[in-house]
Amino acid sequence: MADEFVLRRRVQFAETDLAGVLHFANYFRFMEEAEHAFWRSIGEGVVTEHDGCRISWPRVSVRCDYVAPLHFEDELDLALRVANVGDRSVTFEIEFRREGCRVASGQIKAVCCATRDGAFQPAPMPKSLRKKLEASVGAHGGALKR
Amino acid sequence: MADEFVLRRRVQFAETDLAGVLHFANYFRFMEEAEHAFWRSIGEGVVTEHDGCRISWPRVSVRCDYVAPLHFEDELDLALRVANVGDRSVTFEIEFRREGCRVASGQIKAVCCATRDGAFQPAPMPKSLRKKLEASVGAHGGALKR
Amino acid sequence: MADEFVLRRRVQFAETDLAGVLHFANYFRFMEEAEHAFWRSIGEGVVTEHDGCRISWPRVSVRCDYVAPLHFEDELDLALRVANVGDRSVTFEIEFRREGCRVASGQIKAVCCATRDGAFQPAPMPKSLRKKLEASVGAHGGALKR
Amino acid sequence: MADEFVLRRRVQFAETDLAGVLHFANYFRFMEEAEHAFWRSIGEGVVTEHDGCRISWPRVSVRCDYVAPLHFEDELDLALRVANVGDRSVTFEIEFRREGCRVASGQIKAVCCATRDGAFQPAPMPKSLRKKLEASVGAHGGALKR
Repeated sequence: MADEFVLRRRVQFAETDLAGVLHFANYFRFMEEAEHAFWRSIGEGVVTEHDGCRISWPRVSVRCDYVAPLHFEDELDLALRVANVGDRSVTFEIEFRREGCRVASGQIKAVCCATRDGAFQPAPMPKSLRKKLEASVGAHGGALKR
Repeated sequence: MADEFVLRRRVQFAETDLAGVLHFANYFRFMEEAEHAFWRSIGEGVVTEHDGCRISWPRVSVRCDYVAPLHFEDELDLALRVANVGDRSVTFEIEFRREGCRVASGQIKAVCCATRDGAFQPAPMPKSLRKKLEASVGAHGGALKR
Repeated sequence: MADEFVLRRRVQFAETDLAGVLHFANYFRFMEEAEHAFWRSIGEGVVTEHDGCRISWPRVSVRCDYVAPLHFEDELDLALRVANVGDRSVTFEIEFRREGCRVASGQIKAVCCATRDGAFQPAPMPKSLRKKLEASVGAHGGALKR
Repeated sequence: MADEFVLRRRVQFAETDLAGVLHFANYFRFMEEAEHAFWRSIGEGVVTEHDGCRISWPRVSVRCDYVAPLHFEDELDLALRVANVGDRSVTFEIEFRREGCRVASGQIKAVCCATRDGAFQPAPMPKSLRKKLEASVGAHGGALKR
């Protein structure tokens, strides 16, 4: 599908727990890695300077639904879609697939902020960033402009 | 309030990220620590043997809403409530408070499973466990039986 | 013993791995938590401002020797000693004990640095800090001044 | 060089800390990922069955020396060498390189164990494993047979 950015990622030993599976909190690290790889794919970074201001994307809401357990050395495809672009926020949906089958799916909603010393001030999304996000949505088939 | 189990927990250095705040994925570790402390408080463990079977509680769905950033050495109260007890599942709600103010809130829905070598088989909740969970809900004021 | 600072710490679920034990890399997080609790116990923080400069303590060398595996919910005593105070460095030794028995031991050597945006500049240790460290060594019996 | 196995690995956001650098404990996760990639490269897994017994490699001793800080999105080459093969143990040395320059170096000594439910029993290294390890050392130039 054209409306996805896909990152391949293997489950590492340290990410499993005593139940023998990928620990549930680590799915959010996987999602974030897909998100950041997506930022890089459009020539941007998740932490950038715009007009002398450091822009960052703290999360306001995240969730994950688990379908099947994942194990050490499983290879996953993390399929990311830009689900929504708001004035100051962006929402990503990430599907976890193993051998083509969905094993989990998650969502990250993040807001554009100017950041300094661990404090965040909501800020309008830089136009260049917005353009790239929307262009990226376009490149992904348009279906994401919902 | 009587309807809560509270765990105090400090933000550790390794749990922060380059934005200077508690990394968003780590909130789920905090929630789980509160959950497991709650299990201990009712004389149970999250990994137990019942009738010769190893019982575990894989997650089916989790979420977190972030209100304010948390910093290194912040002391948090994690207030856990048993929001729902189903036939095979239990739902916990966890509120993060710093100096009495809510800074985040999350939810974990877990299902009772018999586990072996990283595979999970849904199983009815052991009666003794269910009794304790429901008694705990009762001890917590009854308001949680929704 | 007077020459130790002790932090009690429980092994959490997310810190175990599929072998059913505390993952070996997490021992270093435990050590650091003991170190930071020690800093707090002498009225200091590991990240502080001195003379308008932000002081931090990047590590130059660490090690850990493992004696016995640790499991979920094990309660450990992390016994920290200030092994050496140099001009710009400090070396901590941390012993892991379970029910009084040593199960691991580690070492952290850190250097005093002025830090800015992820860059570190070695700096002389602030006198007030040095005094406290040495006093702490003294309070710990003097045997540590080797 | 022929005597190395190299894994390329990027520093992820969640692996940094508030000082803006790769947290020192995470270097050990990097080392382990290189080790496990090496096992895969010789057609083996770090967790395997041999003669009906589950073989694992708990660590007895690890260390790391830090030369220069690492930052978010840095790309590293983790160069692993088999430094020693004993009767029941193997020692890996891992050098961290950024743009060809050494930025850290570490060592992992692990012992061959039969494992069951989080307990480890030292065991002789399976011959097929030993052969592959030694062949691998040979393939790596022989210089490692010290």
